[in-house]
Amino acid sequence: MATTIYVLNGPNLNLLGTREPETYGRATLGDVETMCREAGKRHGLAIAFHQSNHEGALVDWIQEAAAKRAAGIVINPAGYTHTSIAILDALLAGSLPVIEVHISNVHAREDFRRHSYVSRAAKAVICGFGINGYSLAIDGLAAMLTPSKG
Amino acid sequence: MATTIYVLNGPNLNLLGTREPETYGRATLGDVETMCREAGKRHGLAIAFHQSNHEGALVDWIQEAAAKRAAGIVINPAGYTHTSIAILDALLAGSLPVIEVHISNVHAREDFRRHSYVSRAAKAVICGFGINGYSLAIDGLAAMLTPSKG
Amino acid sequence: MATTIYVLNGPNLNLLGTREPETYGRATLGDVETMCREAGKRHGLAIAFHQSNHEGALVDWIQEAAAKRAAGIVINPAGYTHTSIAILDALLAGSLPVIEVHISNVHAREDFRRHSYVSRAAKAVICGFGINGYSLAIDGLAAMLTPSKG
Amino acid sequence: MATTIYVLNGPNLNLLGTREPETYGRATLGDVETMCREAGKRHGLAIAFHQSNHEGALVDWIQEAAAKRAAGIVINPAGYTHTSIAILDALLAGSLPVIEVHISNVHAREDFRRHSYVSRAAKAVICGFGINGYSLAIDGLAAMLTPSKG
Amino acid sequence: MATTIYVLNGPNLNLLGTREPETYGRATLGDVETMCREAGKRHGLAIAFHQSNHEGALVDWIQEAAAKRAAGIVINPAGYTHTSIAILDALLAGSLPVIEVHISNVHAREDFRRHSYVSRAAKAVICGFGINGYSLAIDGLAAMLTPSKG
Amino acid sequence: MATTIYVLNGPNLNLLGTREPETYGRATLGDVETMCREAGKRHGLAIAFHQSNHEGALVDWIQEAAAKRAAGIVINPAGYTHTSIAILDALLAGSLPVIEVHISNVHAREDFRRHSYVSRAAKAVICGFGINGYSLAIDGLAAMLTPSKG
Amino acid sequence: MATTIYVLNGPNLNLLGTREPETYGRATLGDVETMCREAGKRHGLAIAFHQSNHEGALVDWIQEAAAKRAAGIVINPAGYTHTSIAILDALLAGSLPVIEVHISNVHAREDFRRHSYVSRAAKAVICGFGINGYSLAIDGLAAMLTPSKG
Amino acid sequence: MATTIYVLNGPNLNLLGTREPETYGRATLGDVETMCREAGKRHGLAIAFHQSNHEGALVDWIQEAAAKRAAGIVINPAGYTHTSIAILDALLAGSLPVIEVHISNVHAREDFRRHSYVSRAAKAVICGFGINGYSLAIDGLAAMLTPSKG
Amino acid sequence: MATTIYVLNGPNLNLLGTREPETYGRATLGDVETMCREAGKRHGLAIAFHQSNHEGALVDWIQEAAAKRAAGIVINPAGYTHTSIAILDALLAGSLPVIEVHISNVHAREDFRRHSYVSRAAKAVICGFGINGYSLAIDGLAAMLTPSKG
Amino acid sequence: MATTIYVLNGPNLNLLGTREPETYGRATLGDVETMCREAGKRHGLAIAFHQSNHEGALVDWIQEAAAKRAAGIVINPAGYTHTSIAILDALLAGSLPVIEVHISNVHAREDFRRHSYVSRAAKAVICGFGINGYSLAIDGLAAMLTPSKG
Amino acid sequence: MATTIYVLNGPNLNLLGTREPETYGRATLGDVETMCREAGKRHGLAIAFHQSNHEGALVDWIQEAAAKRAAGIVINPAGYTHTSIAILDALLAGSLPVIEVHISNVHAREDFRRHSYVSRAAKAVICGFGINGYSLAIDGLAAMLTPSKG
Amino acid sequence: MATTIYVLNGPNLNLLGTREPETYGRATLGDVETMCREAGKRHGLAIAFHQSNHEGALVDWIQEAAAKRAAGIVINPAGYTHTSIAILDALLAGSLPVIEVHISNVHAREDFRRHSYVSRAAKAVICGFGINGYSLAIDGLAAMLTPSKG
Repeated sequence: MATTIYVLNGPNLNLLGTREPETYGRATLGDVETMCREAGKRHGLAIAFHQSNHEGALVDWIQEAAAKRAAGIVINPAGYTHTSIAILDALLAGSLPVIEVHISNVHAREDFRRHSYVSRAAKAVICGFGINGYSLAIDGLAAMLTPSKG
Repeated sequence: MATTIYVLNGPNLNLLGTREPETYGRATLGDVETMCREAGKRHGLAIAFHQSNHEGALVDWIQEAAAKRAAGIVINPAGYTHTSIAILDALLAGSLPVIEVHISNVHAREDFRRHSYVSRAAKAVICGFGINGYSLAIDGLAAMLTPSKG
Repeated sequence: MATTIYVLNGPNLNLLGTREPETYGRATLGDVETMCREAGKRHGLAIAFHQSNHEGALVDWIQEAAAKRAAGIVINPAGYTHTSIAILDALLAGSLPVIEVHISNVHAREDFRRHSYVSRAAKAVICGFGINGYSLAIDGLAAMLTPSKG
Repeated sequence: MATTIYVLNGPNLNLLGTREPETYGRATLGDVETMCREAGKRHGLAIAFHQSNHEGALVDWIQEAAAKRAAGIVINPAGYTHTSIAILDALLAGSLPVIEVHISNVHAREDFRRHSYVSRAAKAVICGFGINGYSLAIDGLAAMLTPSKG
Repeated sequence: MATTIYVLNGPNLNLLGTREPETYGRATLGDVETMCREAGKRHGLAIAFHQSNHEGALVDWIQEAAAKRAAGIVINPAGYTHTSIAILDALLAGSLPVIEVHISNVHAREDFRRHSYVSRAAKAVICGFGINGYSLAIDGLAAMLTPSKG
Repeated sequence: MATTIYVLNGPNLNLLGTREPETYGRATLGDVETMCREAGKRHGLAIAFHQSNHEGALVDWIQEAAAKRAAGIVINPAGYTHTSIAILDALLAGSLPVIEVHISNVHAREDFRRHSYVSRAAKAVICGFGINGYSLAIDGLAAMLTPSKG
Repeated sequence: MATTIYVLNGPNLNLLGTREPETYGRATLGDVETMCREAGKRHGLAIAFHQSNHEGALVDWIQEAAAKRAAGIVINPAGYTHTSIAILDALLAGSLPVIEVHISNVHAREDFRRHSYVSRAAKAVICGFGINGYSLAIDGLAAMLTPSKG
Repeated sequence: MATTIYVLNGPNLNLLGTREPETYGRATLGDVETMCREAGKRHGLAIAFHQSNHEGALVDWIQEAAAKRAAGIVINPAGYTHTSIAILDALLAGSLPVIEVHISNVHAREDFRRHSYVSRAAKAVICGFGINGYSLAIDGLAAMLTPSKG
Repeated sequence: MATTIYVLNGPNLNLLGTREPETYGRATLGDVETMCREAGKRHGLAIAFHQSNHEGALVDWIQEAAAKRAAGIVINPAGYTHTSIAILDALLAGSLPVIEVHISNVHAREDFRRHSYVSRAAKAVICGFGINGYSLAIDGLAAMLTPSKG
Repeated sequence: MATTIYVLNGPNLNLLGTREPETYGRATLGDVETMCREAGKRHGLAIAFHQSNHEGALVDWIQEAAAKRAAGIVINPAGYTHTSIAILDALLAGSLPVIEVHISNVHAREDFRRHSYVSRAAKAVICGFGINGYSLAIDGLAAMLTPSKG
Repeated sequence: MATTIYVLNGPNLNLLGTREPETYGRATLGDVETMCREAGKRHGLAIAFHQSNHEGALVDWIQEAAAKRAAGIVINPAGYTHTSIAILDALLAGSLPVIEVHISNVHAREDFRRHSYVSRAAKAVICGFGINGYSLAIDGLAAMLTPSKG
Repeated sequence: MATTIYVLNGPNLNLLGTREPETYGRATLGDVETMCREAGKRHGLAIAFHQSNHEGALVDWIQEAAAKRAAGIVINPAGYTHTSIAILDALLAGSLPVIEVHISNVHAREDFRRHSYVSRAAKAVICGFGINGYSLAIDGLAAMLTPSKG
């Protein structure tokens, strides 16, 4: 199963495309899933794609990813980015490479969106590219997984 | 469905009437529901009344309220008031008028109860009136919804 | 005189209706006074209505309310909300129930408007309902004064 | 049921024994449960043992413990220690004695692990003894419950 | 009356010339008034010149300036600079151009003199030129009022 | 007039004896005045005794004390202690010796009562002796004024 | 022994009269002792007078004062004022009235001299009167001990 | 001597049983010593038991414990917990296992009691069990010293 | 020239490949340039590639990019990320899309590396992918420049 | 050369007139230079006018001004205002009168623009008058240089 | 006795050579004393060399050095560096030149080791040279004492 | 070239001897260079001596020192000490021993001079010895380079 990437989405991302489109764009979470599967295909990687509004559910999937020896995790923790030590601990507990994605540039928004607990467990962070950030994250993760790219 | 108001209650409010009565009074959550339905009746508004100890469940209901085009949300986020960006984001994602209610005067208690993420998405905030605050919140929300009141 | 409620208004509230109407609405302080007297009538309570730009004058009226054994105080301390320990001390010195009112949602504005000294002495706080908040405050205060409402 | 102690475990503790063994040791959560039941037996106390990654589930169990008039709660809130006011409020709402346990010495780790909301509701706190801390916590709680020990 | 500039002076400025001359110089408030009237004459502008030790009195004059449609306000709020939200709100309520003046360079003094609420409502700020700052402020304000100067 | 001491009292001190007697005692401001005049008599000093709820009035009297070349100022700034730079500046502007008095031990109360702007201009500070602190302040000031005591 | 007052002096006070005389004056600790004994005599109180550079020695004497049922403690903790929780705890452990004395006005010096742990356990605080503060402290303490003064 | 445990007690613990019994209980330090010796006996460990009000004395004993190759240190640093880097450094310098004990739950008291320098050098921390915490500490330390317990 | 992307590198990036390879990898800045030119070619974009240790030189190139109407800027400001308002202002002054790149995950390093002035002017931020982040940044920027990608 | 004033401009001011005109206006740096030379002429003072994006270049010119015994320095340090201790030290090293100028009212913008190191070395500060602030600065500096103006 | 230098060593320095050798090296305090005496000999200065774990003992020696008119003090306050105002005051009370020495580079260690009260009273500070810092400190102090070196 | 020491001087040090002599003394940078060459000769080390007002130039020389395999760097970063992460990174990138020198005791000056980024990369820090500190730094560095001194 090291050929599967978990793409995990936090609270309210199910609203994508309808919520504050000037900030988050008009693409839906379905579009994101399609884009991720295409990106996965480019690199021969399967995609396990999930969204939940529940912090605990995200913790569960992160544990599942590690238990199933996934190749890595791409996670957009949304509102839990800034407050969830439980998610941080779950990511630390697994030893998978983690890419943190945000659709908007969180550094140019409210102060409380600038701090991320998740970043402490992430190999890399991408924000501000809109949903295209997911695609770049998978490209970047795939490159990390390819030893010769070093 | 713009004639329905969602009244949402956060963690431990199911204990109302039994928990620290000197702070929260002796009325139960059932009493609150009855009071809300009476207040709704005064203004010709239906009430969707929920409580959960789960942050994600509150996010789910807030999304549901927006999806069903409710007239507004009255929310007592209890312990999640001070820590939940996920709930804040759900409220921001909907464009419904939101009234934040607290039973006690949170500003006269511990420091950590003075900060509210939810207030950033609320039209109005009421605290300290005991459970009567719910009734006032529905009165106030109804007045907001009546254009001539301006 | 326990049947009188003092409604006290802080600095610049005399400008209501002319000042930044997008924030404070178009109703004047005269309209507020009329609304308060109507609310008082609903509950059989007289209204003593005052406004001043002087911190000391507000302290004087708060002391007067206590000396005349008023039923309670509804106060919109405006700019003194955030800076006046003198007003706080006056409210603490009397033992009247105090309701703090703000026309706008102060929690969604500048940081310095989020802290209130007055809240430490208030039974309850209402903000963001426009001038209708005064009417709700009097309703809420009247309910507090009615023993059977508990 | 005052002869039952609830032993509650927060997020990621189900991974015990596999996660960062240099910090958390090699014993599993099953070992912890066995150790707790043995400790309970020493003092004639039954053990209700639970783990969840969901903050709300922990709140539910804390409420259940109080409703069933348990003798006390031993809780390792893990990642929710530092962020959950909902758990704090649930503990305050019950009037059971609470012992907070941490496997590692949280005071010698990252800064954000030094602050605990839960400690405000705890009678006692134990950290750094590895899983043996659970056993000590039950011993200590049992001593508290024995009036002659005063 | 758009040809009148209000020059308002806060607490203790009536002592000018006698108080700490090494910091504030030897000119009196009468000298300041004379200098302002001369500066006004240069630009065909009348001067309404006031001083008070009372925060409320300053608020009153600021309201008066707006009510009389003055051309602008030059204000040295002295000790109220750093503490008065009431004065800030009065300035925001009017829509007159405001120039804030300080005789000494407040930025090179005690820390608490570095923060100004008034600056949030000011078009421009001048400090450290001694009483000559008033003259420069009127020159600068006059230039702002002349459309061709842009 | 260097034989006169100004004793100035800030907001709400007119309520002395009626307000929170467990904190402030049962003596009235009249009792304080009597005690001060007796203390003055011991040292051959006249007493100018004032109270106001208005910050500006306190500034006016401080200026008057300096203008009349009083021997010194004993001031209990009450709620303005912690917020008034205007009073601080007035005290700095005069060159009179200043004794700051508080009836209660402000250092053992709320945090915001621990900071005093006035202390920066005071020769000495007394707090916690109840109204007897005024008497001690006058004794102490008199000793300062007697060169041989140095 | 309730007729004895302990006068305790912290580190470096043995240098009084030689150390920084512009701040601390020219009187020696011997002069302070003489003054204290005279003040004691005025009120029929014996004086136990001590100085040490050792924090622990001060703790020892505070415990001794309580053990011997002294009438009260006058303490100038000098450099330990700002850092010693051990001294605070010793003062809290006894139930004697405590007067804190400082020779200089610590509030007008470096920031770190403004915070006092000792003030939390003190009935009253006096600073800035030079060594005369000891005499005033004993007068004030004696008045506290005389019930009719209340 | 690796069969000896040093039990070290900081300032004011000699007052145990007399000082604020509602916080610290009624047992004396002699009772603590007896309890520790009993606990030691259970594990075949001798106890070296000391108390001092002097920070330096505690440093001396910590050095002695290391020099004599004691099995470990149980320390209740009392008031020095929060302020003593000297004690921290002494504990770091030895390589003995250290258990920090507090009688009360320091996390539920004043803010300044929440920070511990000593915790940085401790293997484990116990607080809030009253004097029974010493017994649990020795049990816990003994378990640490037994390799098979791991 | 809207077909050119400026790739700007801040201080010490000329050392790439030799400096702390465990943090920054073994590829040289020449390798980065090659990778960028290849990425540019994929999207039909020319690359202007620069490095300097001088803050002012970076400001100059940013101004040049805007003056020459470049398609966008990819910038790794290195040590100036956290301190340079001059670079921020230069980026704000131009209206080009800006992508901020860091080779390591700056959020998992020292605290002072977590704050970026540059992020306020960036459309997107990438960090932690090693030098591959440049390639991803150009891919992401190219997608932004393609209208149909939205 | 005491008849020359150095007018120094920091980073990005060369873009004046093109950069964010709603904040900085439409006049160019050439217009500023012309205005300064005219203002100089009014007072018989030559103008040395410079701009650089390099912090070190500004330090060089400040040293040059002192070495050539210029009459004073008018400096708009732009982005270096808030971060450059090197410029502060250069201004302190010379003993020339310094006037700090900002085109916009920096106090009404982002928080990080409110702090100025340069103000510590300045005689006076002007901000918010647009480019006219340069002219006022030269007028104000000229007045300072004329002894009779005092 | 102005030909004697006091070399004072704070808590735990008696352990030098045995404690954490990777931080503090393998030389003992005896080696330091020998090195100091050699350095003294180079400059014709006697050495009074002391160590104590007691803050008060260090205060005593500092007072002794001043009383005996020593030529200067070289002090390594170890753990008291960061917490002792008593030592600071003792150093300020004497008027001897003081050199502060630390064996390790305290600025590159934990945050709490970066602040030194003692530095406020020191002429110079040396850290990070291992025990050689003592020798350099004496060389540097000797140079200060030689007028022609100025 | 491991026999060369780079001595690097930051902004405004070229003014040495003319700038604020009460703080920095009367010796010139030429005198410093001479002193450094003499100190170098004592240890058989060549000196590369530089000064610049440009942060980037200092970064360039630090890189050069590493490239040329110098024996070490003595750096007085002056105003860049407190603000330059670029210089810190350059020092970290090289693996040379670094000694940080300041002429004055920066710890006894303004708060912003107490923090040094450079100290994080330095082996040792010397301040307050005047220009003699350079000589001591070279002595200390030479001793570090001599293995037997260890």
